[in-house]
Amino acid sequence: MNEFELIDTIKQQTYRQTSLIKGVGDDAAVFRSDGYDVVTAVDTFVENVHFSKKTMDEVDTGYRVLAVNISDIAAMGASPKFYLVSIVIPPQLSDKQVQDIFKGMKEIASVYKMDLIGGDTVSGDSLMISVTVIGYVHRDKVRYRHDAMENDLVFVTGTVGDASCGLHILLNALDVDNSDYFIARHRRPRPRVAFANDLQKISRLALNDISDGLANELHEIAEASNVTIQIDDNLIPISHAMHVFTKEEQDNWKYFGGEDFELLGTVSEQNWAQVVDVANKHGLQVTKIGSVKPKSIAPVLLQQNNKNIPLEKKGFIHKK
Amino acid sequence: MNEFELIDTIKQQTYRQTSLIKGVGDDAAVFRSDGYDVVTAVDTFVENVHFSKKTMDEVDTGYRVLAVNISDIAAMGASPKFYLVSIVIPPQLSDKQVQDIFKGMKEIASVYKMDLIGGDTVSGDSLMISVTVIGYVHRDKVRYRHDAMENDLVFVTGTVGDASCGLHILLNALDVDNSDYFIARHRRPRPRVAFANDLQKISRLALNDISDGLANELHEIAEASNVTIQIDDNLIPISHAMHVFTKEEQDNWKYFGGEDFELLGTVSEQNWAQVVDVANKHGLQVTKIGSVKPKSIAPVLLQQNNKNIPLEKKGFIHKK
Repeated sequence: MNEFELIDTIKQQTYRQTSLIKGVGDDAAVFRSDGYDVVTAVDTFVENVHFSKKTMDEVDTGYRVLAVNISDIAAMGASPKFYLVSIVIPPQLSDKQVQDIFKGMKEIASVYKMDLIGGDTVSGDSLMISVTVIGYVHRDKVRYRHDAMENDLVFVTGTVGDASCGLHILLNALDVDNSDYFIARHRRPRPRVAFANDLQKISRLALNDISDGLANELHEIAEASNVTIQIDDNLIPISHAMHVFTKEEQDNWKYFGGEDFELLGTVSEQNWAQVVDVANKHGLQVTKIGSVKPKSIAPVLLQQNNKNIPLEKKGFIHKK
Repeated sequence: MNEFELIDTIKQQTYRQTSLIKGVGDDAAVFRSDGYDVVTAVDTFVENVHFSKKTMDEVDTGYRVLAVNISDIAAMGASPKFYLVSIVIPPQLSDKQVQDIFKGMKEIASVYKMDLIGGDTVSGDSLMISVTVIGYVHRDKVRYRHDAMENDLVFVTGTVGDASCGLHILLNALDVDNSDYFIARHRRPRPRVAFANDLQKISRLALNDISDGLANELHEIAEASNVTIQIDDNLIPISHAMHVFTKEEQDNWKYFGGEDFELLGTVSEQNWAQVVDVANKHGLQVTKIGSVKPKSIAPVLLQQNNKNIPLEKKGFIHKK
């Protein structure tokens, strides 16, 4: 297949979004947006840096690349609508493999009725996929990380550390209980779009998705909001099945692992019940892990064994 | 410098666009758009495929990467407003070199008051830059390639083939008159934003930018509009200084060279004078090169030596 034939097999045949005026097929895509703010983010994945054939196939890779971007849009409280894909194709990658990457993206795009509206396919030495996602949000309901306030509760959805645990299992070919669960959490993260969207009744909410590790995201909210966040080590939700690993491994994954694409947020006490209701509606666990304090000695304090110790932004993850 | 420090030196310190609500510094950027259509395009450049150290430095590379994207927005009749950059940084690239790439982008961004609102910097084996550009256009003034109609004039701005000629000069280290001109046309293309924007009084216009060669762009308009375009070989505007090269080289560059980022358009006879006026206002040459005919034996016919021959979409460019 030449480049144009390949693109024909990749591009969407019909579009889902009514605000789309022109998708693929001109110099640029065109869409309309009245009464909404437009939200956009980009993420780039390089083979053997962000993913590898050893741990996932092409369909999973495509799925994950787009999921990660959708998670950024969810963390803004927005609904994902469109995406554009740039892909660098190395000579050894077959047309089928390229199509499988797009198959994975289309799979998760269809969940959110998203449209592929543009992109670029070029040749190069190594596989690289860059995705730009565009979403809409009611203009007074954008969820910034600078909106945390003193006395807010700090919460997290789902469990953290699973994706890192899954990658560890894959890289070391371990045979442990619930391997499939952890591996799926690594390969097929589910961005929390519906949950974030359904929090719209709440007027103020700080929100981040957990892409770079819980510790990093806590720092980002604390620094942007000019507060200190105090969390309790005993409250951090991890999967029960993770207990077969050492305490050091668990701590490492839950604080610094990231890539679970759960949401971390802060909300006033009085809105907490609403957050729980929305989570319940979506069958999603939501856990209070701490609270927001006046700015003190460190952006993030960890309560562990009755002591408050500063939690660093980045820990060290031993990849064996 | 670590990744975060590097990003701090790269990101814009102040923003220019009043419609921007949030730039870099959260999960995604946010902007507002009332009464306009939003136009978006992405282009990706890989070192040693789309550019090389042999022919341009980092500042030029950054400039050119963004210029090319702006050209797509211009070809839609839109004004470029925002851009997002993904960059894969190989180990041998210094912080200074990365900053120089962004310096080049900022240089052309400042011409159009564009804001850098997001991006991703990741490590990898080879340098890759992917840029997403977002622009606005009055909703009934989007310039599609499917809007050519029978009896339209076909026009082109500036001269074509210069950028390919410049690349040829660089790759072969030639010493010819006006080398600097041709080289600048390769390294520093000027997208025709002001010209395209000022054509807004004209109700209908088909427009493409010449990125892949005149022949290819003619095909795209003819096919999208379901017509045949007839052009006259004698009318194609090339730089006088190109006459030191062989006829074969000239033909090759003017029809298949591309990357001049001039605009190709079709417009009704009655609006032609307005197109000329706008071009004059911007000190830009505009040339009538042919006309739009009912669909016949080929999408594009070339009048050469009193014969009409089909012009292929892609020719062959010998890169010596």
